[in-house]
Amino acid sequence: MIRSSERLEVIALSGVPLIARGDDLARLALDGLARAQLALADGDVLVVTSKVVSRAEGRFVALPTVTPSARAHALALETNKDPRLVELILAESSAISRRAKNVLVTRHRLGFIVAHAGIDLSNSVPPDAAPDTGPWALLLPEAPDATARMIRAALEAASGAAVGVVISDSFGRPFRLGTVGAAIGCAGLPPLWDRRGDRDLHGRVLVETITALGDQVAACADLVAGQADEGRPFVLVRGLHFTPSDEPTASLYRKPDEDLYA
Amino acid sequence: MIRSSERLEVIALSGVPLIARGDDLARLALDGLARAQLALADGDVLVVTSKVVSRAEGRFVALPTVTPSARAHALALETNKDPRLVELILAESSAISRRAKNVLVTRHRLGFIVAHAGIDLSNSVPPDAAPDTGPWALLLPEAPDATARMIRAALEAASGAAVGVVISDSFGRPFRLGTVGAAIGCAGLPPLWDRRGDRDLHGRVLVETITALGDQVAACADLVAGQADEGRPFVLVRGLHFTPSDEPTASLYRKPDEDLYA
Repeated sequence: MIRSSERLEVIALSGVPLIARGDDLARLALDGLARAQLALADGDVLVVTSKVVSRAEGRFVALPTVTPSARAHALALETNKDPRLVELILAESSAISRRAKNVLVTRHRLGFIVAHAGIDLSNSVPPDAAPDTGPWALLLPEAPDATARMIRAALEAASGAAVGVVISDSFGRPFRLGTVGAAIGCAGLPPLWDRRGDRDLHGRVLVETITALGDQVAACADLVAGQADEGRPFVLVRGLHFTPSDEPTASLYRKPDEDLYA
Repeated sequence: MIRSSERLEVIALSGVPLIARGDDLARLALDGLARAQLALADGDVLVVTSKVVSRAEGRFVALPTVTPSARAHALALETNKDPRLVELILAESSAISRRAKNVLVTRHRLGFIVAHAGIDLSNSVPPDAAPDTGPWALLLPEAPDATARMIRAALEAASGAAVGVVISDSFGRPFRLGTVGAAIGCAGLPPLWDRRGDRDLHGRVLVETITALGDQVAACADLVAGQADEGRPFVLVRGLHFTPSDEPTASLYRKPDEDLYA
């Protein structure tokens, strides 16, 4: 059971150092909470940007090391993109959703639809990179649900509180411009909040209301996280009321045969 | 200029009565703020659910009064829907996006893509409805940007603070399950937050980052608003940093020729 909350606090933890391969994200988040003099409480949700999870996992690839396939070359021509990037996108994807000049949207191997397989080229350089080894691509995390569970377990062991963890990314969308936070990993927090059967104040059943809880929590956090490299990759969302859940984040993703747009 | 915030508070105002045609939403929101002992401050954003705007505008239609066209009858058969509802959907829409059994998604006359033209059948009954006059449909607000501007002006006149207003709805999405809050009206708050050209801590330009600010603010509010008929149609979002903007909400909507999915 989840009940609607009346008040949330959304707090970006400051002073987090630039994340490098092997960093202990749970420890760094706990340090950030300590700096902010915040003790974790039951129902707190820690939102972690996918970018720092990828950095901690060392998901960097130097484009000069990538050899594009013939398929990647053809698709690169069609989409006006670097064939080495297209090769990485294809390797991270299970199907192509849309392609056009300057556009390549795929179904990521993790199950969601995203442009460029979520690969970040804009400012991803590993801290120990030798000069002239880039440009670098940063792939999405390997297994974000598993990582969220590990972070959650560490936070709960350190605090004694029952908490949730969300790993978030910023996605573009069909129909609407601008990016929004979306959940790509969850632990503890139910990704969907099924309110079907709940009744309103007048006793009427609220039909067809299933809220994308994980995505909306990620959207809240996105408003305060800034860009990960600015040092605010951890956001605490306090005030939600939920019963811990082991539901995988994939319950948020429409299956291909349930999606008229994919 | 907008700068990223470090902390937000998201507060649902409680004790708001069921809204009826002609109600003064700004006055009711100010009453809710007073009950919560909250004084509006510069940068506060009031999020108002579209449902109460529609109720205040009297956007109820009794389905027995609707005469479906031949086109509505045909589309109702194809989509397995009430032909009177389909007639209302068509009247509120400029184009059909997707239709299938149990699915009818259109471009609303206001410019966004939404299922059922955003029409609510689930629990919309006007307070003064005679028995056996329903079922009732509640259409989306007539002109939500204009309504947001009116509410903003009233809040600013009463408080002296520079505030924003968002009129929100809950939308389903392609690709992902569950509904999320989305902005259909804005005043003061820029619907999009264009960060292109901003630099990160390392002096690198953050390219291609345009955040759907209005939608993310609506998503935050959705987490605490509950269903409008439960009496929490007003949510205060405090802690954003933005310069007042007159940008229409339509700047969030992809034009048909910019959208590979519509």
